[in-house]
Amino acid sequence: MPTTARTIQLVARPVGAPKPTDFRIVDVPLPDPGPGEVLLKMEWLSLDPYMRGRMSDARSYAAPTPLGCPPPTEAVARVLRSNDPSLQAGDRVLVHDAWRDHTVAKAANCRKLDPTAAPVQAWLGILGMPGLTAWAGLKHIGRPKPGETLVVGAATGAVGSVVGQIARLSGLRVVGVAGGAEKCRHATETLGFDACLDRHQPDLAARMAEACPKGADIYFELTGGDVLSAVLPLLNPFARIPVCGTIASYNATTAPDGPDRLPALMRLILTRSLTVRGFIVSEFAADRPAFEAEMTTWLASGQITHKEDVTDGLDSMVPAFIGMLEGRNFGKTLVRLG
Amino acid sequence: MPTTARTIQLVARPVGAPKPTDFRIVDVPLPDPGPGEVLLKMEWLSLDPYMRGRMSDARSYAAPTPLGCPPPTEAVARVLRSNDPSLQAGDRVLVHDAWRDHTVAKAANCRKLDPTAAPVQAWLGILGMPGLTAWAGLKHIGRPKPGETLVVGAATGAVGSVVGQIARLSGLRVVGVAGGAEKCRHATETLGFDACLDRHQPDLAARMAEACPKGADIYFELTGGDVLSAVLPLLNPFARIPVCGTIASYNATTAPDGPDRLPALMRLILTRSLTVRGFIVSEFAADRPAFEAEMTTWLASGQITHKEDVTDGLDSMVPAFIGMLEGRNFGKTLVRLG
Repeated sequence: MPTTARTIQLVARPVGAPKPTDFRIVDVPLPDPGPGEVLLKMEWLSLDPYMRGRMSDARSYAAPTPLGCPPPTEAVARVLRSNDPSLQAGDRVLVHDAWRDHTVAKAANCRKLDPTAAPVQAWLGILGMPGLTAWAGLKHIGRPKPGETLVVGAATGAVGSVVGQIARLSGLRVVGVAGGAEKCRHATETLGFDACLDRHQPDLAARMAEACPKGADIYFELTGGDVLSAVLPLLNPFARIPVCGTIASYNATTAPDGPDRLPALMRLILTRSLTVRGFIVSEFAADRPAFEAEMTTWLASGQITHKEDVTDGLDSMVPAFIGMLEGRNFGKTLVRLG
Repeated sequence: MPTTARTIQLVARPVGAPKPTDFRIVDVPLPDPGPGEVLLKMEWLSLDPYMRGRMSDARSYAAPTPLGCPPPTEAVARVLRSNDPSLQAGDRVLVHDAWRDHTVAKAANCRKLDPTAAPVQAWLGILGMPGLTAWAGLKHIGRPKPGETLVVGAATGAVGSVVGQIARLSGLRVVGVAGGAEKCRHATETLGFDACLDRHQPDLAARMAEACPKGADIYFELTGGDVLSAVLPLLNPFARIPVCGTIASYNATTAPDGPDRLPALMRLILTRSLTVRGFIVSEFAADRPAFEAEMTTWLASGQITHKEDVTDGLDSMVPAFIGMLEGRNFGKTLVRLG
C-alpha cells in the first residue's frame, strides 16, 4: 500500500496565464484510512477551466485554493483499501478531490460507478459535471425552441460540444466557434453543427452575421471575448444568455482598454428584453438523475458523441492545464494516471 | 369644434441632450372624426424617459418618431364629439397619442376612465404605465422575498417610487438613490424607504455599501451610471436585476472612455449567479387588471402614495422633457392642458 501521494501544489497565485513555476510536484505523506474511509488510487483526473478561478483570490462563488495545497479536481479512482462496508477494494468511484495520484477519502463522499455502463472517465465529461452544465444550463436558462438559432463558443470543448448537440436534437440551428479548421470540421461533420467559425480567422463578426441569418436566440456563454462581441448585435428580442464561463478573460490581469461597453450592454439588455443569467452547475444538482438517464440514451443511440483529449501522467497535468486555457485541447481534457 | 391641433413636432434628431430647437410647435389641420372615431381634447400628457429613445433612430424595440411628426405619449383626454356609440361627449379616456392638444382617434383605441375612482391623471402614472412597469418588473423579475435588500435609483420618480414602496410592503429593506436632499427626505419620510442616497454627493459607492450591510438582492435598473457602478460590487449570489431604463446614458453620443468593464460584468454575472433581465412593460400587458386592483387598494388605504410634477400648457412640454432627462422633475412628470 502506498504511504505517500504524489501531489501538485499551487505555490504561487498565477499572474496572467499560469506558468509551470506556479506549481510544484512533491510527495506528501498519505495517512492510513480511518473508519468509514477508503484509500484511493486515482485513474483519471479532470481538467476544467473553472480551476483557473480557484487559483485566484478574487471573490468568487468558491474559496481559493490555499497556497501550498493542490487545486481541486474531480477524479475517477480505484479503491485500494476500504474501511467502509459500502465499498470494496477494486471498486471504481467518482470523487471530488485534488491534483494528486492517491488520496484518502470518506466512503460517503465517493460515488460508486458501474464500469459496464460507460467508460469510467465519461463521468468526468459527457456524463459528469460538464455534461450536466450543458444540459441544465440549456434546459433551464436557454429554454430552446425548435427553429431558433443557438450560438456557442469553445464548440468542441467538454461543455460547448454538448450544448450544440443537444440544441441540434432540439431542432435549433447551431452555430459554433472554435479555434482552427480541424475543430470546425469536427463540429460540423461529427457533432452536426450547422456552421462553425474559426476564431483565428479575421472578421468574426461579419462571418457570425452570415451564419445567423435569423439572428441568435440563445448565446451559451463559455468564452466571452471576441465571440461575445460578435454575437451581441445579432441577439433577437427575448434572447437568453446562460453564462457559465468567460474563458477569454480568466488570465486577464486588468480590464481591457476602452471604450467602456458596459452601458451599451445594459441598453442592449433593455431594448431587446434579454435574459442574461449566470449559473454554477451545483445549482442544478437535483437534475443529475434525469440528465444521466437522457444522456445515456443519447450516447447509446449515437445521437450524441464526445471526444476526449487525454494526456498521461501527473507530470503532464500542469502543461495540459495551461494549454487548455489557451484552447489547445481538442475535446474534454483528461489526465490518465497509469 | 376645433379644426386645428397645436402640435409639437420633432424636427431634428437630438445629438446628446435634446435642445429646444429639436422641436417646433405648429398648428396642423385636424380632420373631422369619421365613423367609429372621436374628437379628443387632451387634458393631461405624460412625459416619460423612454420617449428619448423614440427620438433616436438607433435600433430599439419600437420604431423612431419620424422627423416632422410629434413624439408619442399617453394622454388623458375629454371627448368633444363622438361618432361611436361606446363613447359620449364629456367622457374621459386614456389614449396612446402624441404631443398635441387635440386629436382624432378610434374609439376602440380609447379606454374610458371612471373619474370618480381616481384623479384621471393617475392612469398616466401610479395606475398606468409607470405603475405597471414597477409592479410587473418587481413581481416577475425581481421576485422579492421578505428580508432581502432592494436598491433603486430615480427613487422619487414615477417608477422608482412605486418599486420602492411595493418592496417595502413586501418586507424588504429599500435603499434608494435620488438627486438632492429634498428628494432623499421625501423617499425616506413619505415613501418609507429605509435609506436614500443623494447622487450629487461624493463617495456614492461607499455610502451604498454602508446602506446595504447585507448586500443587495434586487437592483431595479432605471438609471445606469453611477448607481449601477455602486451596486454591482454589493450584489449577492442569485441577485436579480430587472432592467427597464438606463436614463444616465440616454443622451450619450459615444461610449464612455475605458477601461472596458463589459468583461468584468459578465464575470460578475457568472460568479454571483446573477439574473439580468431587460423588459418593456408591454410584455406584461395581461397583468393590468391584477395590477390595477392591487394598486387601487394600496392607494385607498394610503399604503402607497404618489407625487406629480405638473407643468401647464403645451409650451411647457419641451422644457419639462429636457428637465426630466436631467433629473429635475420631482415625481411623475405631467403636462396639464387647460
